[in-house]
Amino acid sequence: MKPELLEHFANGYPKRDYTIEIVNPEFTSVCPITGLPDFGTITIRYEPDKSCIELKSLKYYFLEFRNAGIFYENITNRILDDLVSLLQPRSLSVKTEWKARGGITETVSVSYSAS
Amino acid sequence: MKPELLEHFANGYPKRDYTIEIVNPEFTSVCPITGLPDFGTITIRYEPDKSCIELKSLKYYFLEFRNAGIFYENITNRILDDLVSLLQPRSLSVKTEWKARGGITETVSVSYSAS
Amino acid sequence: MKPELLEHFANGYPKRDYTIEIVNPEFTSVCPITGLPDFGTITIRYEPDKSCIELKSLKYYFLEFRNAGIFYENITNRILDDLVSLLQPRSLSVKTEWKARGGITETVSVSYSAS
Amino acid sequence: MKPELLEHFANGYPKRDYTIEIVNPEFTSVCPITGLPDFGTITIRYEPDKSCIELKSLKYYFLEFRNAGIFYENITNRILDDLVSLLQPRSLSVKTEWKARGGITETVSVSYSAS
Amino acid sequence: MKPELLEHFANGYPKRDYTIEIVNPEFTSVCPITGLPDFGTITIRYEPDKSCIELKSLKYYFLEFRNAGIFYENITNRILDDLVSLLQPRSLSVKTEWKARGGITETVSVSYSAS
Amino acid sequence: MKPELLEHFANGYPKRDYTIEIVNPEFTSVCPITGLPDFGTITIRYEPDKSCIELKSLKYYFLEFRNAGIFYENITNRILDDLVSLLQPRSLSVKTEWKARGGITETVSVSYSAS
Amino acid sequence: MKPELLEHFANGYPKRDYTIEIVNPEFTSVCPITGLPDFGTITIRYEPDKSCIELKSLKYYFLEFRNAGIFYENITNRILDDLVSLLQPRSLSVKTEWKARGGITETVSVSYSAS
Amino acid sequence: MKPELLEHFANGYPKRDYTIEIVNPEFTSVCPITGLPDFGTITIRYEPDKSCIELKSLKYYFLEFRNAGIFYENITNRILDDLVSLLQPRSLSVKTEWKARGGITETVSVSYSAS
Amino acid sequence: MKPELLEHFANGYPKRDYTIEIVNPEFTSVCPITGLPDFGTITIRYEPDKSCIELKSLKYYFLEFRNAGIFYENITNRILDDLVSLLQPRSLSVKTEWKARGGITETVSVSYSAS
Amino acid sequence: MKPELLEHFANGYPKRDYTIEIVNPEFTSVCPITGLPDFGTITIRYEPDKSCIELKSLKYYFLEFRNAGIFYENITNRILDDLVSLLQPRSLSVKTEWKARGGITETVSVSYSAS
Repeated sequence: MKPELLEHFANGYPKRDYTIEIVNPEFTSVCPITGLPDFGTITIRYEPDKSCIELKSLKYYFLEFRNAGIFYENITNRILDDLVSLLQPRSLSVKTEWKARGGITETVSVSYSAS
Repeated sequence: MKPELLEHFANGYPKRDYTIEIVNPEFTSVCPITGLPDFGTITIRYEPDKSCIELKSLKYYFLEFRNAGIFYENITNRILDDLVSLLQPRSLSVKTEWKARGGITETVSVSYSAS
Repeated sequence: MKPELLEHFANGYPKRDYTIEIVNPEFTSVCPITGLPDFGTITIRYEPDKSCIELKSLKYYFLEFRNAGIFYENITNRILDDLVSLLQPRSLSVKTEWKARGGITETVSVSYSAS
Repeated sequence: MKPELLEHFANGYPKRDYTIEIVNPEFTSVCPITGLPDFGTITIRYEPDKSCIELKSLKYYFLEFRNAGIFYENITNRILDDLVSLLQPRSLSVKTEWKARGGITETVSVSYSAS
Repeated sequence: MKPELLEHFANGYPKRDYTIEIVNPEFTSVCPITGLPDFGTITIRYEPDKSCIELKSLKYYFLEFRNAGIFYENITNRILDDLVSLLQPRSLSVKTEWKARGGITETVSVSYSAS
Repeated sequence: MKPELLEHFANGYPKRDYTIEIVNPEFTSVCPITGLPDFGTITIRYEPDKSCIELKSLKYYFLEFRNAGIFYENITNRILDDLVSLLQPRSLSVKTEWKARGGITETVSVSYSAS
Repeated sequence: MKPELLEHFANGYPKRDYTIEIVNPEFTSVCPITGLPDFGTITIRYEPDKSCIELKSLKYYFLEFRNAGIFYENITNRILDDLVSLLQPRSLSVKTEWKARGGITETVSVSYSAS
Repeated sequence: MKPELLEHFANGYPKRDYTIEIVNPEFTSVCPITGLPDFGTITIRYEPDKSCIELKSLKYYFLEFRNAGIFYENITNRILDDLVSLLQPRSLSVKTEWKARGGITETVSVSYSAS
Repeated sequence: MKPELLEHFANGYPKRDYTIEIVNPEFTSVCPITGLPDFGTITIRYEPDKSCIELKSLKYYFLEFRNAGIFYENITNRILDDLVSLLQPRSLSVKTEWKARGGITETVSVSYSAS
Repeated sequence: MKPELLEHFANGYPKRDYTIEIVNPEFTSVCPITGLPDFGTITIRYEPDKSCIELKSLKYYFLEFRNAGIFYENITNRILDDLVSLLQPRSLSVKTEWKARGGITETVSVSYSAS
């Protein structure tokens, strides 16, 4: 993964609490055990403080997972870590919803709060 | 933007707390970077105090964004500012939900409360 | 409007808190400015005390709005007033959801509580 | 109505709080005024204490309403009374949702809690 | 049932509260009275502590129910017991939603919390 | 069954081919084997010649099936026979769609054409 | 009814076969027997020859039905007659779909072809 | 498989062409390669001649597949063969739609016609 | 409009009949009478001969309509003319579906065939 | 691409015409111009002659497109060519439906018939 790909821009309304939700239904990575691709939807929801995530850089950051072998739980927590580290937001959550494998689906949800 | 286009009328039930929700699924503006159009749904929800927004004037106010280059976050906050300034409501929120670009969608939500 | 059309019957379970929800998706009135018809869905939700609303009389009460020129906000508040006055309920709310005009929809919600 | 048709079996996990929800979308009774049939969906939700309702007996209990003339509000409250009397549950609620008559639908909800 | 089939792996983020939801819409067992098959959807939701459930082993654990005669309520509580015993999670819930029998559906929900 | 309940009125446009479709999603009868109720949706589609079916009489005709024990196939064919006999239409079809029993649904379709 | 309200404009592409479909989901008239309102969706589909229907005039034409007592079949055929008479189209069909009364819905469809 | 479980009854309307469609969304068998269960929906559609299939016997016939290892294509063709042999229908088709495996779904359709 | 913005590329499979469908749900133009924006979905379906339309150039071609005042029927026919002229396809159709104005929606469909 | 990955097995019912439809909603490749990923759903429908496609080998064949830069039209035609070459089917069609890029979606459909 390359968190250095992520870019941010200055929040134009830093005195106000508000929420930004970003949904990427076209996420794909690789199962580290079988080597077969996984497909999922990533939802990021955060309250910006001084910085907002730049969408295009987020897209390129997501692309680095395309051929990486990594577990659902680790993807979810790592995206949270990278974004919190970059944005220092008031709060931030990541939810990853995965297409069925063997008839079974999994969703992983993790939240961060500055307070 | 032209907030001076917005008109209001006297709330006929100022002693009562109630809620008005307005949804415009036909909002469009222009991306300030690419110059390409953005399409979104604007949802406004407020508790009126002395004034209610006049719907037709709101429509003409929205039309001024049609050829303006402006970011999602700024549109959302600016609509909130203009409506709060005009209506002095008990509370007011604005949510903007944008169609996918590069497979990714964004939603911005901001709230104001007089108390 | 003719609130005198409304009839009620004795609540058979006055010692118990319970809720009745009534939905009329076939409501129509007239815009007082353009003279054109408006179409909406009316949802009434209440906790009865001693009385329940008689559904057929409610239907005839709604019919009186068919050719009346009256604003969304006033319809919503007036229905609340007429029903609270008749039923003296523990609580009652009215929600009116209107079909799009000029691409924009509006919903008005108002609540009453005896306590 | 014949509450004596209802049967119960011993709750195998009486020390644990858990919830059972039963939905019957094929309920029918008769309007006591017009004699015409009513159709509805009955939802029962309860936390068992010592007893659970036996589903087949519940089905035969519901069948007794098929040709009975009885109001929506009374059906809802009577099912609650019969089930609470039988099961002595920690909590129990009944919701009845009725198909439209004259374009208007009604839903009745009632709850019981032992505490 | 064979809880010994269940396997777990070490939670990579044990200091963080997060949630994992697993849905299996292809569960089947047998009614102990009629001998006919039941079909349901199993939803498991938990906050891991030191261990996470291994999905493939969960699948084989579920397969053991395929020809077992067991009631809805018992299946739900037994899955909860087996998973809590294995994972020692911060919290865990099991919901089982069953296809209609005689026109009636049932859902059973049970929760565990370590605190 | 009582086909004598059915009434008709003169087709006002007998020189024109046109189609009338009637859907009753609230049909119920009784299984002649188990004595348990069946629930279905009846769709009638016809091209009138000299007569049209009167809707209210059709409703009372349907009500006669409520407590009658009769198979799906026979209901469908009998409704076709009764309506063809009454209306002498240019064409007429009856489709009956039944709610699941034992997890299995059945639909029966039959058509008549005068030519 | 006032067919004289209908206006048309010259088809800009008279040498080409093409199709125009117009849907009005907000049609309302009055049942000539009960005096109660009916609600329906009107779909008009035609291949223009020399003339196209002007939409605003069609809207005012529909409004004349608002307080008129007229049967479903007659509304459908009359709209066809009025539009064919005005537009002299290559083909034209009218479909009217009515909201349920007594649990039963009706749809009426009629077609005209110049050839 | 046990086609001898299938029963039929005499068609009450043998002189008329009509259609019976039966849908079983709760079919399950076993993959002959992996030994893992498959889940599918079976749709049978036929025009009866002298015989109709008895639904309960069809259900028990389907149950025999529950623990049988058999390919999608063979299941579909075998059900067709067994039903055609039993019913000698004017026409009969079988469609089997299978839940995703490895993200991929399959549907198999086969038809028989006596003429 | 600027058909000169449209670009094409050589069909790689000119000996084979196949179909390409392109849907743009984010089309907007201006009503030439009111000056207010219209919103629609454009569907283009064609069988290529020697050339295929380049998607990005089509997008810029559509953008030219953004501030143009032009009727639904004319937009539809003009897009057909411009694309047929450019691509010389075996067949091509254009369908435009417009959001409701005054509660009424319109769809225009036109087809071209080389044979 | 590696058509040599594709495997087939003998059709067990070669004398009968029947249809197999395979849907893969998790297909991904790379745009040869931008290098960004494309996501699509592939639908294959064929009438087997002597051979049927082995599903697991098809999955590995699809995986070879994951990091290949190739246009929509070429993917669709190449899959058709590879499958026709392998299976020599009575007929075969391929449809590829692509997620929106710049708000615009594309679907490509191609068919082969042996006769």
